[in-house]
Amino acid sequence: MYIEKIQSPADLKAMDLNALRIVCDETRAAVLNRVSKHGGHVGPNLGFVEATVALHYVFNAPTDKLVFDVSHQCYPHKVLTGRANGFLGDVDDMNAISGYSSPAESPVYDNFEVGHTSTSISLATGLQKARDIKGTTENIIAIIGDGSLSGGEAFEGLDEASELGTGIIIVVNDNEMSIAENHGGIYKNLRALRESNGKCQHNWFKSWDFEYKYLEEGNDVEKLIELFRSVKDTCKPTVVHIHTEKGHGFQPAVNDKESWHWGAPFNPETGESLMKSSGEDYQTLFADWMLREMKNDPYLIAVTAGTPTAAGFTLPKRQEAGAQHIDMGIAEEQACAMASGMAKGGLRPVWTVYSTFIQRTYDQIAQDLCINSNPAVINVMWGGSGTMNDITHICLFDIPMLCSIPGLIYLAPTTCEEYFAMLKWAIRQDKMPVALRVPSNGVYHTAEAVDEQYAYEPVYKVVHKGSKVAVVAAGSFFQKGENVVKLLADKGIDATLINPRYLNAVDAKTLNALMADHQLVVTLEDGCKDGGFGERIASFYSTIDMKVLVGGIKKDLYDRFDQTQLFRDNRLLDEQIVEDVLQIIK
Amino acid sequence: MYIEKIQSPADLKAMDLNALRIVCDETRAAVLNRVSKHGGHVGPNLGFVEATVALHYVFNAPTDKLVFDVSHQCYPHKVLTGRANGFLGDVDDMNAISGYSSPAESPVYDNFEVGHTSTSISLATGLQKARDIKGTTENIIAIIGDGSLSGGEAFEGLDEASELGTGIIIVVNDNEMSIAENHGGIYKNLRALRESNGKCQHNWFKSWDFEYKYLEEGNDVEKLIELFRSVKDTCKPTVVHIHTEKGHGFQPAVNDKESWHWGAPFNPETGESLMKSSGEDYQTLFADWMLREMKNDPYLIAVTAGTPTAAGFTLPKRQEAGAQHIDMGIAEEQACAMASGMAKGGLRPVWTVYSTFIQRTYDQIAQDLCINSNPAVINVMWGGSGTMNDITHICLFDIPMLCSIPGLIYLAPTTCEEYFAMLKWAIRQDKMPVALRVPSNGVYHTAEAVDEQYAYEPVYKVVHKGSKVAVVAAGSFFQKGENVVKLLADKGIDATLINPRYLNAVDAKTLNALMADHQLVVTLEDGCKDGGFGERIASFYSTIDMKVLVGGIKKDLYDRFDQTQLFRDNRLLDEQIVEDVLQIIK
Repeated sequence: MYIEKIQSPADLKAMDLNALRIVCDETRAAVLNRVSKHGGHVGPNLGFVEATVALHYVFNAPTDKLVFDVSHQCYPHKVLTGRANGFLGDVDDMNAISGYSSPAESPVYDNFEVGHTSTSISLATGLQKARDIKGTTENIIAIIGDGSLSGGEAFEGLDEASELGTGIIIVVNDNEMSIAENHGGIYKNLRALRESNGKCQHNWFKSWDFEYKYLEEGNDVEKLIELFRSVKDTCKPTVVHIHTEKGHGFQPAVNDKESWHWGAPFNPETGESLMKSSGEDYQTLFADWMLREMKNDPYLIAVTAGTPTAAGFTLPKRQEAGAQHIDMGIAEEQACAMASGMAKGGLRPVWTVYSTFIQRTYDQIAQDLCINSNPAVINVMWGGSGTMNDITHICLFDIPMLCSIPGLIYLAPTTCEEYFAMLKWAIRQDKMPVALRVPSNGVYHTAEAVDEQYAYEPVYKVVHKGSKVAVVAAGSFFQKGENVVKLLADKGIDATLINPRYLNAVDAKTLNALMADHQLVVTLEDGCKDGGFGERIASFYSTIDMKVLVGGIKKDLYDRFDQTQLFRDNRLLDEQIVEDVLQIIK
Repeated sequence: MYIEKIQSPADLKAMDLNALRIVCDETRAAVLNRVSKHGGHVGPNLGFVEATVALHYVFNAPTDKLVFDVSHQCYPHKVLTGRANGFLGDVDDMNAISGYSSPAESPVYDNFEVGHTSTSISLATGLQKARDIKGTTENIIAIIGDGSLSGGEAFEGLDEASELGTGIIIVVNDNEMSIAENHGGIYKNLRALRESNGKCQHNWFKSWDFEYKYLEEGNDVEKLIELFRSVKDTCKPTVVHIHTEKGHGFQPAVNDKESWHWGAPFNPETGESLMKSSGEDYQTLFADWMLREMKNDPYLIAVTAGTPTAAGFTLPKRQEAGAQHIDMGIAEEQACAMASGMAKGGLRPVWTVYSTFIQRTYDQIAQDLCINSNPAVINVMWGGSGTMNDITHICLFDIPMLCSIPGLIYLAPTTCEEYFAMLKWAIRQDKMPVALRVPSNGVYHTAEAVDEQYAYEPVYKVVHKGSKVAVVAAGSFFQKGENVVKLLADKGIDATLINPRYLNAVDAKTLNALMADHQLVVTLEDGCKDGGFGERIASFYSTIDMKVLVGGIKKDLYDRFDQTQLFRDNRLLDEQIVEDVLQIIK
């Protein structure tokens, strides 16, 4: 086996073409081995094996700098830069290697921590400028998938790379797919370029003054080597457009490119998933609810930005929704602004986005949406500590972010029934934008009646009226609040339990009422507490004799954390909260 | 005079070409009248007079929808849609009309509140989708300047407009300028299009599959009418590229387009400014300091994104800096990511940005910069209540935003000497990104020695040690803190005064030390208090017997506020703070 012995790309240099082809096969097998046992990004990595081998054969990393976009295609690079063990070893070996480009893991070969999309060209232009100022001559190579081209930052990066005018090589890995299918006018040009072997009349990249080369056989290592050699050491902004096959070499991934973009562990022979369905999930519930509602409401529009399955809009459901679903490509700014425009035009758009990606559109939420008071709905998925945990995908910051934007209501439902009641209200009201933090701690049901109408000013719901201690437990931490109240009852304390429902502001009336017979308010939120929900309650009481225990997660850079350990470190385990309460009110 | 009688664009329809030309002249004179007395955007509005008259003559607003970008070219539209009084009347009449597109002001003719750039196409695609779903046939017209094309949201909007495939008219108002000169590869294509009368080989817009028309004479109302008639009621995505002259009809603005982009009141005969220089300003101090430092440090780079004068980098200073200044066009995402890349490559970039525009790049600060711990410096200008006050340009939100991003230090200097000491430290350290909130309450000097070294963990500075009450006064509110301490002394209270210096986290040691002999901590910050600095201190003390009075501005949608009134409403006048302190500690 070659790849076990490859410690650095230099080991490729002496190989002949046959050996390089074997390295490709072994690298592909290693990637498949990891993703089948550990899960991860399947299709984009499989399609980029030959290009990675060719890049490392032709260029001289780490002197030459490779910058990956979104990291969906960086596994072969990891295999060839001293991290093969993360693909061939046991589960611990695999866990030691992240799924993303990471200088913390490989300071020599990985230039940036990357997990959000459309960033590679912009980051690379910084290295380019540094090279030009320092007068050195290394190659700067940005790698970007066709899907990632739809994000505004990629456009800005292309614009700057052209402006700088010095050498940079932008490898456009065109596998004709985003995470799902591509959306955006640019893809018409990519298709025309593919169909004309790079020679169509109006070339988007050439219009931008890039040198441009096209290669149809993007999974042919020999042709890739020839191509990369032809642009090596260029002193001009250069786009190398290669046509690859997403999932290349693994038939299930070739046959169903969307499902195999990312996968949980699976049987590598058959492609069958090893994960059992874990019952209800909010993605599916949301999509099915929307499809039912759409039948009676032609103005209800499901909006997604490159991740339609965040909203449960699988391909058949997208087809069922027809014009009532729209996906922007990976362009959250456009999604938010267009949702505002749709609401202004009389439609009822509901834009679904993962917590970690909503930060890609702060200004559009503030400016295009909130100062315009257009009643678009934002459906925030996976906000909290129980979802994604890579440093690039932390979902703990949506509360501080959204709650610092004026003109926005941010609701935190606690059960399935409450979620859909809030969603229905948010869609039907016509005064202002409303965001919902979809619970991320599983689907809880309630038999209690839930309110159908919601006020524009916060009204907390007192679920149980006790005394001395009040627990204000928001959204995905509501069930934790229930547990804490039960444990306090065991200690003889009949604590009040409050579902605040609103994250964006405090309910002064309810909080004032607590002052009569409470000494301590405990706030619980499943997110970063710095700048979050609980601090606002602490501030509300800060000039009077009410103690507040703010429960949330300390602002920090977290990577691949364990949720229980995170809770322990932040004193968020149920029994720790009880201990702290008893300590304060003793 | 025609324009005094024009109540709506319908009044234009019966006019002949001669009358329309008079309307153009009168509109231009009205715009000049307003900006000379009131200040405002001069050049872009003057250049768009004929196009606006032609648009309103050909199309039928409000049925047809006009969406303006950044609002720098919306004054002629206001003149023709019932708001001429804001251009011809007295100062009160002028104050009643905002400088930006505003449905709050004209619900019929203005579709969106707009002040940040690059949004018009994205917003218009929402109206387009609404029209298509509802089956109506109105024209949707997005207007965008060439400068605004450099922002990522504009690209995303173009991408979607092409994808939708139905009728939309995008008017590209090409005056060969951004606020300053243009930066970005796209401008090479615009130039080639101008020089070839729209016929160059690789047309950026046609590559995107837009129908495309070019008009060289963009200030000729007759030709504009002909052009707009030719695309009216199109069912295809269409770009109308018109070449206009920034400042057209007012020679000082034509001669110096950058200085006349926006102007304070001036003599309309000579162009001479009526504003007297008000002494030192941080823009000039910063630019001069950087230029001096650059001479000894070739790796020091000044970065701007479309607003070089935010950093004091006027044209002569940009020329002096040469390759050590880089402007991205209006592309803050690119500026932030590229700064991260530059820092990674060994340069020392300092990116200067206005507070209101930093929110255009939340994700790049979090992902491209902070998780990578690259030591780029962000220089935040005009954060606070004493700078811009339009609803689109509020500068109160940078503290909540930046302080919820892990891996970032946010420093708040209080004097000129402290600012440059902090800046120097931030540039020379190599561990992590540092942002500085440049004081916005004038340039104060201190004769006291300021620290040259700063720790990575917050260390507050106790300026005066008293007892009972401690005033923690941050950045631009430090002088307010000094005043409050003086007023308290008059009441017999020897209050402690603290310059916290760090906004991003609390200094537990200093705060703990206060517990011995203080009852109340007053926090003062010149920004939104919801999610801000003071709430974190309230939270720090929330389980013990220390009262905290959080002084800051309530989160809300503010528009053209008066600073003193804002202070009064938020109990931030010096004497109000003293009253509240006495009330609490009584």
